[in-house]
Amino acid sequence: MLLQQATWQEVDEYLTRSKGLIVPIGSTEQHGPMGLIGTDALCPEVIAHRVSADAGILVGPTISVGMAQHHLGFSGSITLRPTTLIAVIKDYVLSLARNGFERFYFLNGHGGNIATIGAAFSEIYAERSLQRGSNQPGIMCKNQNWFTLPSAQRISKEQFGDREGSHATPSEISITQYAYPEAIKSMSEDKADAAPRSFTDAEDYRSLFPDGRIEADSFLASPEVGKEIVDACSKEVIASFNAFLAQD
Amino acid sequence: MLLQQATWQEVDEYLTRSKGLIVPIGSTEQHGPMGLIGTDALCPEVIAHRVSADAGILVGPTISVGMAQHHLGFSGSITLRPTTLIAVIKDYVLSLARNGFERFYFLNGHGGNIATIGAAFSEIYAERSLQRGSNQPGIMCKNQNWFTLPSAQRISKEQFGDREGSHATPSEISITQYAYPEAIKSMSEDKADAAPRSFTDAEDYRSLFPDGRIEADSFLASPEVGKEIVDACSKEVIASFNAFLAQD
Amino acid sequence: MLLQQATWQEVDEYLTRSKGLIVPIGSTEQHGPMGLIGTDALCPEVIAHRVSADAGILVGPTISVGMAQHHLGFSGSITLRPTTLIAVIKDYVLSLARNGFERFYFLNGHGGNIATIGAAFSEIYAERSLQRGSNQPGIMCKNQNWFTLPSAQRISKEQFGDREGSHATPSEISITQYAYPEAIKSMSEDKADAAPRSFTDAEDYRSLFPDGRIEADSFLASPEVGKEIVDACSKEVIASFNAFLAQD
Amino acid sequence: MLLQQATWQEVDEYLTRSKGLIVPIGSTEQHGPMGLIGTDALCPEVIAHRVSADAGILVGPTISVGMAQHHLGFSGSITLRPTTLIAVIKDYVLSLARNGFERFYFLNGHGGNIATIGAAFSEIYAERSLQRGSNQPGIMCKNQNWFTLPSAQRISKEQFGDREGSHATPSEISITQYAYPEAIKSMSEDKADAAPRSFTDAEDYRSLFPDGRIEADSFLASPEVGKEIVDACSKEVIASFNAFLAQD
Amino acid sequence: MLLQQATWQEVDEYLTRSKGLIVPIGSTEQHGPMGLIGTDALCPEVIAHRVSADAGILVGPTISVGMAQHHLGFSGSITLRPTTLIAVIKDYVLSLARNGFERFYFLNGHGGNIATIGAAFSEIYAERSLQRGSNQPGIMCKNQNWFTLPSAQRISKEQFGDREGSHATPSEISITQYAYPEAIKSMSEDKADAAPRSFTDAEDYRSLFPDGRIEADSFLASPEVGKEIVDACSKEVIASFNAFLAQD
Amino acid sequence: MLLQQATWQEVDEYLTRSKGLIVPIGSTEQHGPMGLIGTDALCPEVIAHRVSADAGILVGPTISVGMAQHHLGFSGSITLRPTTLIAVIKDYVLSLARNGFERFYFLNGHGGNIATIGAAFSEIYAERSLQRGSNQPGIMCKNQNWFTLPSAQRISKEQFGDREGSHATPSEISITQYAYPEAIKSMSEDKADAAPRSFTDAEDYRSLFPDGRIEADSFLASPEVGKEIVDACSKEVIASFNAFLAQD
Repeated sequence: MLLQQATWQEVDEYLTRSKGLIVPIGSTEQHGPMGLIGTDALCPEVIAHRVSADAGILVGPTISVGMAQHHLGFSGSITLRPTTLIAVIKDYVLSLARNGFERFYFLNGHGGNIATIGAAFSEIYAERSLQRGSNQPGIMCKNQNWFTLPSAQRISKEQFGDREGSHATPSEISITQYAYPEAIKSMSEDKADAAPRSFTDAEDYRSLFPDGRIEADSFLASPEVGKEIVDACSKEVIASFNAFLAQD
Repeated sequence: MLLQQATWQEVDEYLTRSKGLIVPIGSTEQHGPMGLIGTDALCPEVIAHRVSADAGILVGPTISVGMAQHHLGFSGSITLRPTTLIAVIKDYVLSLARNGFERFYFLNGHGGNIATIGAAFSEIYAERSLQRGSNQPGIMCKNQNWFTLPSAQRISKEQFGDREGSHATPSEISITQYAYPEAIKSMSEDKADAAPRSFTDAEDYRSLFPDGRIEADSFLASPEVGKEIVDACSKEVIASFNAFLAQD
Repeated sequence: MLLQQATWQEVDEYLTRSKGLIVPIGSTEQHGPMGLIGTDALCPEVIAHRVSADAGILVGPTISVGMAQHHLGFSGSITLRPTTLIAVIKDYVLSLARNGFERFYFLNGHGGNIATIGAAFSEIYAERSLQRGSNQPGIMCKNQNWFTLPSAQRISKEQFGDREGSHATPSEISITQYAYPEAIKSMSEDKADAAPRSFTDAEDYRSLFPDGRIEADSFLASPEVGKEIVDACSKEVIASFNAFLAQD
Repeated sequence: MLLQQATWQEVDEYLTRSKGLIVPIGSTEQHGPMGLIGTDALCPEVIAHRVSADAGILVGPTISVGMAQHHLGFSGSITLRPTTLIAVIKDYVLSLARNGFERFYFLNGHGGNIATIGAAFSEIYAERSLQRGSNQPGIMCKNQNWFTLPSAQRISKEQFGDREGSHATPSEISITQYAYPEAIKSMSEDKADAAPRSFTDAEDYRSLFPDGRIEADSFLASPEVGKEIVDACSKEVIASFNAFLAQD
Repeated sequence: MLLQQATWQEVDEYLTRSKGLIVPIGSTEQHGPMGLIGTDALCPEVIAHRVSADAGILVGPTISVGMAQHHLGFSGSITLRPTTLIAVIKDYVLSLARNGFERFYFLNGHGGNIATIGAAFSEIYAERSLQRGSNQPGIMCKNQNWFTLPSAQRISKEQFGDREGSHATPSEISITQYAYPEAIKSMSEDKADAAPRSFTDAEDYRSLFPDGRIEADSFLASPEVGKEIVDACSKEVIASFNAFLAQD
Repeated sequence: MLLQQATWQEVDEYLTRSKGLIVPIGSTEQHGPMGLIGTDALCPEVIAHRVSADAGILVGPTISVGMAQHHLGFSGSITLRPTTLIAVIKDYVLSLARNGFERFYFLNGHGGNIATIGAAFSEIYAERSLQRGSNQPGIMCKNQNWFTLPSAQRISKEQFGDREGSHATPSEISITQYAYPEAIKSMSEDKADAAPRSFTDAEDYRSLFPDGRIEADSFLASPEVGKEIVDACSKEVIASFNAFLAQD
């Protein structure tokens, strides 16, 4: 069930069965010469929607704009400052908790979000921790990157080996090619630049990675691999979500 | 062109032709017994994507969660506090302005967003206004509610008259029925409660409007009317967007 | 009763009769060659003080500085950023609510405040809406612009027709001439510039409206018309306030 | 010249002569059984307006609501949280600085504001200090409490000795009696409670000072003494303001 | 007992005896040619640690970075903006209050912190004051500058007279010389500049005080005087802390 | 060189040789029955001070209070909310950058800080990234946990194997025993509870880990192992810091 396509009565009914939902979270940022700017939001959304279709798990609206300050040297990239993203996640979670949700499973598509998501969870918990004996029902938040799921890593390794890289990877581009075949782009088969060191701000990033990719041979992507990843990851997410809900 | 499905080079190329884009903005909130929780985000998104397809105008990722505090009495509703939404809009606009966008046309699907969108625009302008002689390129933001477009109002009046109401209206539900036929819901043909007065917080709203609708006979909705509205509104948005860009 | 001229015991006694008060809110910003910088604060204050004198309604201290970022191109203009004004309104309302006030009637003198006032009310409500079953007494806030009161619009139309304009209007200047005859200014009878489009930031505003007025022939103002507006509006505000308090 | 009663051209002209203005700042809080709730805002306003009339010094709109959290146990008291008041002062100062003001003389009527005013000045300076070589024109802010002016202290001592106390003092009430004779209140001649220790929050304050006064025999106030204080203080403020402007 | 060197069980046991602790707070900022950058944090820390050793009073971790915007013209100086420092003090106090602490005695080493510390206490209290009948246990905060303790002032006067000055004073440098003999520095015996007026931002400060000192002949410092001050102040702090805890 | 024990001239001189410094950052939180509450701040401080002594690298004041919301169920624990810690790190870094520092090496002692430190770095970078062509000198921030240094992991494995655990570990307690022998505590040799799942807020943490430890047999600690870790880690930090500074 997709929250956006449900009614409030359907959500009420869902809550009698489950207190948890999945929140896809990504980013809107350049992904090199052939990767879509929405890649990091689209990938977890595609997987989460499959999970919803296959297992009846509720999926909230995708948080499409994330923490992407380092990509602002390329047109079309959008960032939320970390403090803004913390506020967004906090309001999102507390709104749903208000009516009974207790388990929030974030399915994340962007490495640059991880720290801020973690800080946001702590910000939510901190408010409760500062009050003794609040007797509120528990809130439990979990972040799961789709690209660190075992099957995603296995397929990446099998298919792309060390040409996967870490930004505009053939894996993530494969997923968007599978889900959005009308938006498949091509590029010359230039090997991506290696990362000499970690980056800082947008000007620094662009000077290190002139075409936007980090060590990723995006052109190896294919819709077929995308399908394989989505198939495998959605199964894993179902199991992982159910385990998360089964925790005491 | 959808920003999420474009590459940064395509955006660079677009910027040589146009400095403007459309940003769909909505809400995730109860819409009565048969309206989708995502209605207010889906409607402007549907229209904007049509605009993009028909006229090649760039459309950014939808801001799906808006200011919906009054709906929190119903499960599945999500709000951003106004100050959070202001921060989101500010970061979104300034990110794109950084690489050359100057005109931001927000296509809004939720009455409850209007005040906060206006405040957000002023927050963005205020930062510039407090500096004399900044010599920054101009930023111009405009909010256009799809439901106050002349054609939307005309069709609503023709089709639904005074049964349109103001929340969970047959017009907006018609659009989602047209765009998401697999998610059409039904309800008993109960007339919605009249609004005795304006509402305040979530408990107040729910006590005034027990099934979530405000004076809206949602069950009058049909996919056919939805198509009619989308067809007409998308034409108007193209014209309105072009006029906005043509302003000095 | 003016709050600033009352004692706390008098307020306690007032609370046994009424849970509501009027809060004048305006702006401190240029009003063209003859309009006072304080016009937008002074007008609602004058009307509210008359209301207090005539009907014994409590009036709080005027919020004299509002959201006026677009006027910062002219000396003497002061703005609060929208997020600052939201914080001010929230603290103001919650302070009085703490001791029993429940109905807050903002009498506003500045179009540029409307969006932010609306956002501020939602910010206040949101905090309550995010908590289920708070069992707090209700807070109800209402904004009423004096210049959209029926009598203000009628007199404006009768007296000034389409020369009223929208900034530094003869109506508002008439009120300040009536209330502050010692501060009546004059100007040459130059027709104001028409508004070619909506404005954005301060530099943009000044370039569109070089003398500060928007389509307003300020020089048509007179103290007599000012008196007529204050007389009529104060009667309407009393009725409107009482209706606001009578709502369930 | 009062800013609220001036035009922008008059302010432009004033700026050719002076870069400084006076900002009255006070509070809206209980002042015991006979002190007006607005006392702390009205006193500096009365003095500043006299200064303006006598010496042609520009006076901005009064910041009427200050930091009064400890008085919230009494009806009618309003506080801004310190962080809100900091934002207000910052926006106020930076707005006027934008068009050329450089010296901001705050005339304060409330002891509880002093710390927050100081923090606000530092917040303004800090933004500049964090940037090297900003080459902005200087901003200089000064806080002057009217009640610590030598003449205010001399008259208080002569007239009221140790019965002056520190909240709802006969001195401040005298000023409001002089300026607002129509709002003179009376009370039984009960000696105020001595302060056993400093107070913390509102409940604590009220338990220490049940009628709101701190060691102040308010009933000793008289309009005559009020006039004496205003006469003397306004002379001192003129001199002090001019000295402030004359500093390099 | 130093909090950093205690276990939670020891703190639990301490709480059965006392609800109070000492929080050293200082600054990290230039102190002229021979004063240590950490002087303002080290001095209260040294005294507080002595107090802890002598009287078994719990001492929390030192807040080493304070409000020092005016010193940013000199390398190595660090400031927190006032709003940041307010947040730090609030979180610090509320964390410890959560488990039973009620009395917070800040021992301050920096004049520039005083206003912000006061504002922070009010921010903490304000949250409670805005809620009626919260029935929370009380929180009481007190700021005590070590340099305004009677014995500190007496020794300063005896030893340094009017050569003490107000920044990089021989008194504070004496304390650090006594506590950190390995870090004693020397300078030429240049008299410090007199303060022509109060300072504003960092550029202004440096232009007024080119070597960083304010009227202070730092070179008069000696470890012997430092020991005398620490001995005397620690005794006074013990008495003052106990009196603070004994208040109802 | 320790910043707190240096003068501004010494820092100026240091800047001619190096643009980098080390910032120890930790936490103040329970560490089980025998671990010191300051463990996470003391460990990186001890290592950093050794580094300073051995290699002349500048070390700033320790950020002793970090993100520890989950420990608030135990007395003496203090947290900064993530948004507060972000502000602290931002002000700290920008203050030093103002006078020429460009490389900030955070030596972290607390796993719970990692996400927020990452978010803080992004917050700093974001401000720069949102401005095109700022031409500011670069700022580069790096976080290094001492406990993930290869030598720390090697010694831990050799000495404690799977009894190291993850909170109140024998390794970190060994360091504090070595550095603060006067504060060595003992406990009964109870094996710590295993972690059934990840924790959320303070009540949840305490219910999972009643004595505060996570899978750590703290009682295996010894000062000798502490010395070994400090010796090895300080060598590694020197090399790692120099490599960080040598990056282009």
